Amino acid sequence: MSEKQKRYMLPEDQIPRRWYNIQAEMPTKPMPPLNPATKEPLKAEDMFPIFAEELCRQEMNQSEAWIDIPEEVREKYKYYRTTPLVRAYGLEEALQTPAHIYFKNESVSPMGSHKLNSAIPQAYYCRREGVTHVTTETGAGQWGASLAYAASLFGLEAAVYQVKISYEQKPYRRSVMQTFGAHVTPSPSMSTRAGKDILTANPRHQGSLGTAISEAVELARTTPNCKYTLGSVLSHVALHQTVIGLEAEKQMALAGEYPDIVIACFGGGSNFGGLAFPFMRHNFTGERNTRFIAAEPASCPKLTKGEFRYDFGDEAGYTPLLPMYTLGHNFVPPNVHAGGLRYHGAGVIVSQLLKDGFMETVDIAQLESFDAGVLFARSEGIIPAPESCHAIAATVREAIKCKETGEEKVILFNLSGHGLIDMSAYDKYLSGDMVDY
Amino acid sequence: MSEKQKRYMLPEDQIPRRWYNIQAEMPTKPMPPLNPATKEPLKAEDMFPIFAEELCRQEMNQSEAWIDIPEEVREKYKYYRTTPLVRAYGLEEALQTPAHIYFKNESVSPMGSHKLNSAIPQAYYCRREGVTHVTTETGAGQWGASLAYAASLFGLEAAVYQVKISYEQKPYRRSVMQTFGAHVTPSPSMSTRAGKDILTANPRHQGSLGTAISEAVELARTTPNCKYTLGSVLSHVALHQTVIGLEAEKQMALAGEYPDIVIACFGGGSNFGGLAFPFMRHNFTGERNTRFIAAEPASCPKLTKGEFRYDFGDEAGYTPLLPMYTLGHNFVPPNVHAGGLRYHGAGVIVSQLLKDGFMETVDIAQLESFDAGVLFARSEGIIPAPESCHAIAATVREAIKCKETGEEKVILFNLSGHGLIDMSAYDKYLSGDMVDY
Repeated sequence: MSEKQKRYMLPEDQIPRRWYNIQAEMPTKPMPPLNPATKEPLKAEDMFPIFAEELCRQEMNQSEAWIDIPEEVREKYKYYRTTPLVRAYGLEEALQTPAHIYFKNESVSPMGSHKLNSAIPQAYYCRREGVTHVTTETGAGQWGASLAYAASLFGLEAAVYQVKISYEQKPYRRSVMQTFGAHVTPSPSMSTRAGKDILTANPRHQGSLGTAISEAVELARTTPNCKYTLGSVLSHVALHQTVIGLEAEKQMALAGEYPDIVIACFGGGSNFGGLAFPFMRHNFTGERNTRFIAAEPASCPKLTKGEFRYDFGDEAGYTPLLPMYTLGHNFVPPNVHAGGLRYHGAGVIVSQLLKDGFMETVDIAQLESFDAGVLFARSEGIIPAPESCHAIAATVREAIKCKETGEEKVILFNLSGHGLIDMSAYDKYLSGDMVDY
Repeated sequence: MSEKQKRYMLPEDQIPRRWYNIQAEMPTKPMPPLNPATKEPLKAEDMFPIFAEELCRQEMNQSEAWIDIPEEVREKYKYYRTTPLVRAYGLEEALQTPAHIYFKNESVSPMGSHKLNSAIPQAYYCRREGVTHVTTETGAGQWGASLAYAASLFGLEAAVYQVKISYEQKPYRRSVMQTFGAHVTPSPSMSTRAGKDILTANPRHQGSLGTAISEAVELARTTPNCKYTLGSVLSHVALHQTVIGLEAEKQMALAGEYPDIVIACFGGGSNFGGLAFPFMRHNFTGERNTRFIAAEPASCPKLTKGEFRYDFGDEAGYTPLLPMYTLGHNFVPPNVHAGGLRYHGAGVIVSQLLKDGFMETVDIAQLESFDAGVLFARSEGIIPAPESCHAIAATVREAIKCKETGEEKVILFNLSGHGLIDMSAYDKYLSGDMVDY
């Protein structure tokens, strides 16, 4: 048939049955997290008070490359998976590039982003272990909304600390969480010791992911039957997200192609790892030589300008010490619209992979990211999340190089989410009022 | 395989190749639109100054049951079609009903609703006929956003008159339109004679679909190479929307079932007709005896309490006279959150079908619609548009009847859109501040 195929779908029974655990196959394993008091390596059971036990075991699992996805989780994945792989003919034409551009469309999930892929198993394991309450932090609200949804699916009560400035600026995401029955508190709040200490020092503190993590962890520690959950950074989150890349690999085969370059935006690493890791395993064996590019905001450049060392994951220093690229746990990024990328550190797996030369990084200024996002919207019809705009901008850069060299490279990027609840950012861009960090 | 299938997908090559034109097979054909001055029946060419010529011919076509979908339109449908048919196991469990509930998920379109199905062909035909500018009205903004997107796909300039109260209350939808490059004007405005007249009479007029239609039609009439487009009510719009039902029929076959009841919300008839008409043709032949239910807001009850007569489609009386169920073209519905259902009249095809007993109607109060919408969100994970909440409420009523009688009926409803840009309505509901019209 001569018709051009636009979208590649997989039937429901091809939703992956196993997650890919890249830790087991990395040439150099990540260094262990450390107990901040003793500086001793942490064991899985040291984290049991905070996280569901199975998640702690997944976090530390460096031996099994494939982890079975529980049937109950696959049942919930069916609510929106598999997601389409899309050939971006419109964007190719707009750029007049010979490159073949594909994107994995994670924006079709009911919460509008890839975050559900990990929220569902995290809520499931909590439920299976008898937990009744879950807590977390959220910035812009993508993760908080996904956890609220997953909690409602498994009959758990959810308490979300939302960064105060976002709570006030993005009321729609707060409403989404409340629609699913979650309790949403702006952070810093007076409901925790960490929050009180921060407010005592600075009564007008607008909040950050670091303060919200401290509050949520404290709530989990001090509440019976309550566990903390996290939407990025940790290795078990990236593990769950590999459904993205595992599906994409099969879909690329349906298209008869294999990516030369794989691109994703980078906050803590969950959507990057989710797409990239299943492809990267073929680089480990020497079978493939794919390039992997993480696109981060120029204003929060932990990968391009950060330091590789042990650091805390939160502001108050409640978390274990993690070996990662970091700008320092007290780094306060400017208020860019890509709230999901405003984090000082990177996941331990990605940090090790970058150190070992398995991936590349680029930083993208805010205006360039929205230039690319609006071009994409007008050519492909989907308004991307401000975070995803960074992946698109990196894709545009590579596609323009192909135009210059005439190379027909195959580029695959992750459309991690849509921007329909972030339109105030587009307003700023279109009216010329956007600051270029 | 014993696994329960949740979503039924069709491959891209099964996007319909023809629309179903129910007018050709209705036992009683709709009466013709009339020229308001002469009261003579209108011919297709009488509408050429306002609409693309091919759309006028489709509007009046009562002889051909199947109309070819142009290949260029199918190419753009591939950006988001086919859409999933979903078995609502979660909702069934929440209701403890023996009914089998399915929904067609049109919310996965990039603009979040079914409106693109007609925006794309309307923009295409305009382009093919050498039109350079298109204009339309929009209330909440679903249609305006879809037309803005379709216009950008075909290189047309789009001017949208948005009901002033919505322009101010729903800035995100305005931003979506502007992201696609559309010019958005709050209506009534000083840019048309109709708008000036309305503002002279009432300087604080908040706008209505009727005023916005008058302004858009006037702009099309007075601008070279500019055509007007409409998102509902007219027969060619329902024609384009039949891709919904044609896909759903094949998907129900994949599920091994056939609907006993088909339900959709009702504003002007586009999402109702789109889902229902392809199934209804089997009732005409006596092969099936499916029930069809249109769910309208109790506050705008043209089908349940309106009168069948000739009436104008807009406030200023610029449109032809249409034979329809109407509350009167000066009827101002209360400010319910389901902005897409706030219209005084019904499409001519649906009006005739209702008169002839081929369908039923129910009216749903605002609070009942949101009760159902929140129940659906928590059990199926998708926050429905306020309009779609009416279809869900009607579905819940029928499913509860099944519980009482023990009948395993198969119910299919149209999830015409998601509510992610309508969260302020959910806020009102959750806080107990919602008025029950």
